[in-house]
Amino acid sequence: MLSDTIAAISTAVGEGGIAIIRVSGPDSIVEVEKLLKSRTPLSQAESHTVHYGHIVDPEKGEHLEEVLVTVMRAPRSFTTEDVVEISTHGGVIAVKRVMDLLLQTNVRLAEPGEFTKRAFLNGRIDLSQAEAVIDLIRSKSDRAFSVALKQVEGNLSRRINELRHTLVETLAHIEVNIDYPEHDVESFTSELIKDKSRHVMDEIDKLLKTAEEGKILREGITTAIVGRPNVGKSSLLNTLAQDNRAIVTDIPGTTRDVIEEFVTINNIPLKLLDTAGIRETMDVVEKIGVERSRHAVNEADLILLVLNSSEPLHEDELALMEQIRGRQCIVILNKMDLPHQLDMDIVRRYYPDELIVPMSVKAQEGIDSLEESISNLFFSGKIEGGDLTYVSNVRHIALLKKARKSLVEAYEAADELIPIDMIQIDVRMAWEQLGEILGEAVGDSLIDQIFSQFCLGK
Amino acid sequence: MLSDTIAAISTAVGEGGIAIIRVSGPDSIVEVEKLLKSRTPLSQAESHTVHYGHIVDPEKGEHLEEVLVTVMRAPRSFTTEDVVEISTHGGVIAVKRVMDLLLQTNVRLAEPGEFTKRAFLNGRIDLSQAEAVIDLIRSKSDRAFSVALKQVEGNLSRRINELRHTLVETLAHIEVNIDYPEHDVESFTSELIKDKSRHVMDEIDKLLKTAEEGKILREGITTAIVGRPNVGKSSLLNTLAQDNRAIVTDIPGTTRDVIEEFVTINNIPLKLLDTAGIRETMDVVEKIGVERSRHAVNEADLILLVLNSSEPLHEDELALMEQIRGRQCIVILNKMDLPHQLDMDIVRRYYPDELIVPMSVKAQEGIDSLEESISNLFFSGKIEGGDLTYVSNVRHIALLKKARKSLVEAYEAADELIPIDMIQIDVRMAWEQLGEILGEAVGDSLIDQIFSQFCLGK
Repeated sequence: MLSDTIAAISTAVGEGGIAIIRVSGPDSIVEVEKLLKSRTPLSQAESHTVHYGHIVDPEKGEHLEEVLVTVMRAPRSFTTEDVVEISTHGGVIAVKRVMDLLLQTNVRLAEPGEFTKRAFLNGRIDLSQAEAVIDLIRSKSDRAFSVALKQVEGNLSRRINELRHTLVETLAHIEVNIDYPEHDVESFTSELIKDKSRHVMDEIDKLLKTAEEGKILREGITTAIVGRPNVGKSSLLNTLAQDNRAIVTDIPGTTRDVIEEFVTINNIPLKLLDTAGIRETMDVVEKIGVERSRHAVNEADLILLVLNSSEPLHEDELALMEQIRGRQCIVILNKMDLPHQLDMDIVRRYYPDELIVPMSVKAQEGIDSLEESISNLFFSGKIEGGDLTYVSNVRHIALLKKARKSLVEAYEAADELIPIDMIQIDVRMAWEQLGEILGEAVGDSLIDQIFSQFCLGK
Repeated sequence: MLSDTIAAISTAVGEGGIAIIRVSGPDSIVEVEKLLKSRTPLSQAESHTVHYGHIVDPEKGEHLEEVLVTVMRAPRSFTTEDVVEISTHGGVIAVKRVMDLLLQTNVRLAEPGEFTKRAFLNGRIDLSQAEAVIDLIRSKSDRAFSVALKQVEGNLSRRINELRHTLVETLAHIEVNIDYPEHDVESFTSELIKDKSRHVMDEIDKLLKTAEEGKILREGITTAIVGRPNVGKSSLLNTLAQDNRAIVTDIPGTTRDVIEEFVTINNIPLKLLDTAGIRETMDVVEKIGVERSRHAVNEADLILLVLNSSEPLHEDELALMEQIRGRQCIVILNKMDLPHQLDMDIVRRYYPDELIVPMSVKAQEGIDSLEESISNLFFSGKIEGGDLTYVSNVRHIALLKKARKSLVEAYEAADELIPIDMIQIDVRMAWEQLGEILGEAVGDSLIDQIFSQFCLGK
């Protein structure tokens, strides 16, 4: 099944100094060797060595590209197969030339994620590690990257394996009890099942608690800035974007690729809803009924309500506060540099003081407080150490919840002293559900679906 | 001066499987080693070997990224310095993390083109080769890439060096004549100068003849499609774009990065003028006076005039043919699937048959003929072999013209039997001007200017 050899461009496409084509499979070395003019024949090259040479059209003899070729022999490679990486000049033509030639040999174009899929199928990493690889690449903040890297390195896998170990021990105990009932007292086993189920449930709860934060880290906090016209929404947006678009500024040349409204505040990514148009319709509160703005507000994890502190509260603003009641919201009292006119009593009826941030966007005052409020709201200042294992993947969350449900059933059954061979089924099911996180007994179609989300060349 | 160590992201920025950071300079190995946890310490690694490891924040001890690190020791590297290439996960965060850490050490951010500049300053390549590196990366067609690759490999340099060799021999002869006039007859030397000058002039002419084609290969033929409303301009544009946007289709994921109106016909890149707006204003011929459309037509290397063969010639079209008389133009008789109505005698008054292409864009007929006409017009079918050395760089063209002028003066002076120590100056000047193409005696500011056009990381 994995006996064919695949290739893909593994670097981002565009203008750059270098591009890389990755080839993996049993024929990778011999097929690239046919196209390569180098001092050492590739088949004689040692693993993890780099060779200068030219890619030559075997029919015309023409030099097609000047390359550096790296050989990594099985099993010491990303896929555990023989891997050849061809480093070409950047731009689109160089990689196209080499790829075109390569695909005329016994090498086919890799599907998206197929290199990582092979690493999984060949047993180098489990499925949760493979899934984290795409999170790594897509991560928009430093912290999200750290979380994904820990998952790639197997932090989540280790925790899941620990829980499975507990369950398998419990299962063994049940087996003994069933096979040799004379050796054991059933009520004692029921107690053990309750103990162990409770323990694993608690651990699953801990993991599930990280899920919401994990999702935020990965996808960003969807944030809508709302308020009446001229309260300073656009200025606030610009200020947040300027101060915090850290992903961009340090890497020259990225501007064109960046999602304009993605900002990072204290390492928390905010996905500011593309407010072109929304800005428009949000301006007037009665237009809140408009489909698009309603959608924006509904979709938001966080609403930043901007009020003008130098004017009395407008009835539109009152209506808006009523409308978004119960949602995660921070109230920004803007224009604090001007004389205060706003009736704070009304605002305080809706929001506690810690969610009200006095600011002057114009004078650049209060921005730190806003950033602090945002990170407090979402992380409650609790997450500091780098040790926490996050669960951010929807599939993992669903399986953790399933496993938890099976354990609740096992616990309750044990509590009711139901025969332990019945309970055994629930415990085994929890064990299998946790196993699915790691990719055990997972169907081909699910695997295909997971890896199809990858980019090409990974 | 080159004692510092530089680093930059060398792959295109964006979503990809892999990204590469290149580090070059005397401290590259030792500085990366400080940040790398790997089995073999980098300083003990042999040249051209690859090492798996982790980039670790030396203060916090935290794993920042999982990497493959390649060591290429001086002088066997692109820059001839010690080079370390760090292969990280794709995306923006991984490279940013490693770069941020690296720039805290004794490594500074490279300027655009600084790696190639070092390859030049360290004498590994000459200036014309260095200049071709950027052409390689920017090339939009296969043929342009081939031309640039040959220049990188030194084809132009060899030809220039041959000419300089001829000139230096001539100079030696002149020296002998001046120093030992008793050994030589001055009139004989004048003849030699004339011979050699003529030879080098002819060779320069050959090179200059390739300049226009080289420019076309590099920048594309600027092409304007003109005609009255509803003659089929947009359909033609779409057909050309669909059939020929070969750069794009084979590389999944490039669509977003591509200049929409760049097409390649028989390996000749056409830069279709961004006709949004132009299409509009071109529709009516009297609007030809409008600034933008006039500019488009004036700027074009090639005009594709589309006529509707199923209608009599319109006076607007007559006016248009009058206006663009003398320009490179191909007349497309579109809608040949409908009954013919157009008076061909008038059209033939303006254009020879070989520049008139009957077509039916709707029925997809005649497209091959059009493509053939375009390539005939620009290459006259002469350029086939891959051996031709093109001159495409404006700086090279200017220097070749200067050298030619100096040689004309030497020739004429020799012809008039002006004393050969006067002629010597012109010959020496031609020799120096050719040398400037290779980067000899070129000032720092020019060098800086040339390399500042490079992308970062090359």
